[in-house]
Amino acid sequence: PVSGTGSAGMEACLVNLLEKEDKVLTLVNGIFGQRMADISQRIGARVDTLEFEWGTPVNLDAVRKKLSDNKYKLVAAVHAETSTGVRNPVPEIGKLVRESGALFLVDAVTSLGGIPVNVDDWNIDALYSGTQKCLSCPPGLSPVTFSERALNVILNRVTKVPNWYLDLSMIIKYWEGKKRVYHHTAPVNMLYALYQALMLIFDEGLANVFERHRKVHEMLVNGLNRLGLEMLVDKPYRLPMLNAVKIPEKVDDEWFRGELRNRYKIEIGGGLGPLNGKIWRIGLMGYTAREENVEKLLTAFNDLLN
Amino acid sequence: PVSGTGSAGMEACLVNLLEKEDKVLTLVNGIFGQRMADISQRIGARVDTLEFEWGTPVNLDAVRKKLSDNKYKLVAAVHAETSTGVRNPVPEIGKLVRESGALFLVDAVTSLGGIPVNVDDWNIDALYSGTQKCLSCPPGLSPVTFSERALNVILNRVTKVPNWYLDLSMIIKYWEGKKRVYHHTAPVNMLYALYQALMLIFDEGLANVFERHRKVHEMLVNGLNRLGLEMLVDKPYRLPMLNAVKIPEKVDDEWFRGELRNRYKIEIGGGLGPLNGKIWRIGLMGYTAREENVEKLLTAFNDLLN
Repeated sequence: PVSGTGSAGMEACLVNLLEKEDKVLTLVNGIFGQRMADISQRIGARVDTLEFEWGTPVNLDAVRKKLSDNKYKLVAAVHAETSTGVRNPVPEIGKLVRESGALFLVDAVTSLGGIPVNVDDWNIDALYSGTQKCLSCPPGLSPVTFSERALNVILNRVTKVPNWYLDLSMIIKYWEGKKRVYHHTAPVNMLYALYQALMLIFDEGLANVFERHRKVHEMLVNGLNRLGLEMLVDKPYRLPMLNAVKIPEKVDDEWFRGELRNRYKIEIGGGLGPLNGKIWRIGLMGYTAREENVEKLLTAFNDLLN
Repeated sequence: PVSGTGSAGMEACLVNLLEKEDKVLTLVNGIFGQRMADISQRIGARVDTLEFEWGTPVNLDAVRKKLSDNKYKLVAAVHAETSTGVRNPVPEIGKLVRESGALFLVDAVTSLGGIPVNVDDWNIDALYSGTQKCLSCPPGLSPVTFSERALNVILNRVTKVPNWYLDLSMIIKYWEGKKRVYHHTAPVNMLYALYQALMLIFDEGLANVFERHRKVHEMLVNGLNRLGLEMLVDKPYRLPMLNAVKIPEKVDDEWFRGELRNRYKIEIGGGLGPLNGKIWRIGLMGYTAREENVEKLLTAFNDLLN
């Protein structure tokens, strides 16, 4: 893992795979897609962006067209867009990207450990996640993985990575450990935490973990619907671990979340960017994806909305 | 603090204070001085380097001459050079740098919490440290501080910081907390650890902490001398928390450190760069700076050397 949070993993993948002037396509339907474009621009890459309405998934036809009209070194997409609750069709995007010959970079910060992430089957060349979402660890590490194709690109760069701390050509020597070359001090306590978190998932069984997330999500959505609330995202693209629900017109966003926090000790996220004040984002990630948490939240919502 | 280890703090200071083509002078007498030059080069800064023999301190006359012949935006120095055990004359360097009008950046990774670090008195504009040295925390955070002059430079940059994760213009909005602007997920558990570590230092009293480091260091040096071992660094420039001792000719470095680790459960550092195989580096930092540790180590050294 990269010794930083998910965003450090994002930056590590981009700055190691891209060099100045490389052509990159970022698929944007939320904050984390935007961030990928921002970081790519800082490197001096030539960044094309395909934008989709926040709350809707990446449209495959638009991607297909863009890829047939242009040649990219890398295409970047977010699997679970934390800012909107959308699950993007990563397997289908991966197929298109591989056919185009580009590398495929995927943000799995919020998806890993909550829904299936099949790196090889989905033609993913580089992927990063974070420890503090569905893995239920403290924040501070970003697990990353690279295909052979991606590794070759990293090891055959012409220019040095501008970011010393995230330079994988140096960190690989540290990770490999044959003759360990010191790079930076690894946050060892975080590694133990990650190890334990993975053991817990292993013990429960990956399929059971996914099923738990799915069930608890359905319970939440049904409960919210009964309270007259509507989800932002269409059913097939909803993330179980990040539930975006439309704020009813008569309710004050700040007041509602404040009461929830102070009176019920429940924190939910507000909307970001264009969705600010329009949605609430309810996390059900890893350890917190439990029926009793949903019950508690629905009771609180019921009290506050009536 | 920066959400990464000491080297991330180093990079954060350099990439935020420097822009492409800026003139910077790095004072190099060990690995961490070299690293400052490497990072500055990656930014595209015009990097001058003053090099001194490893194990000796930065020479003030050389700095004075360099500063009178050239105009720099920033001068970078390491306070406690972990690779050699040298304490550089930071207060004196700071005076020269301020007179020259440049910003003064100091690496206090190994010094903070073990010897005095007087940021304002020493004319330091930017300083970073690490949590896992004399603060005795887990690794993963880099405390940083900036003068008003440095802050003005950061907030008035012409170009974006190439490193998104370390971009202080964005992180400051996150830190300020007035209307908190999300940047990355802070490793909260590390912040609690740092808070506790600082409380422990506060309880013991800073002067007492320094005195403990000094005493234990003297005890170690005397013991090593009695065993016939010589220190690498001249007395006035020795760091108490990082003791570089010359390896006796007849002793095999790898064997010795292996035995120490396996039989006595004591780990000491080997030499780095030009000092590889020539010195051992004995850390006495924070919680480990205790008499019983010195006694244990001297007993083991005595056994193994005879």
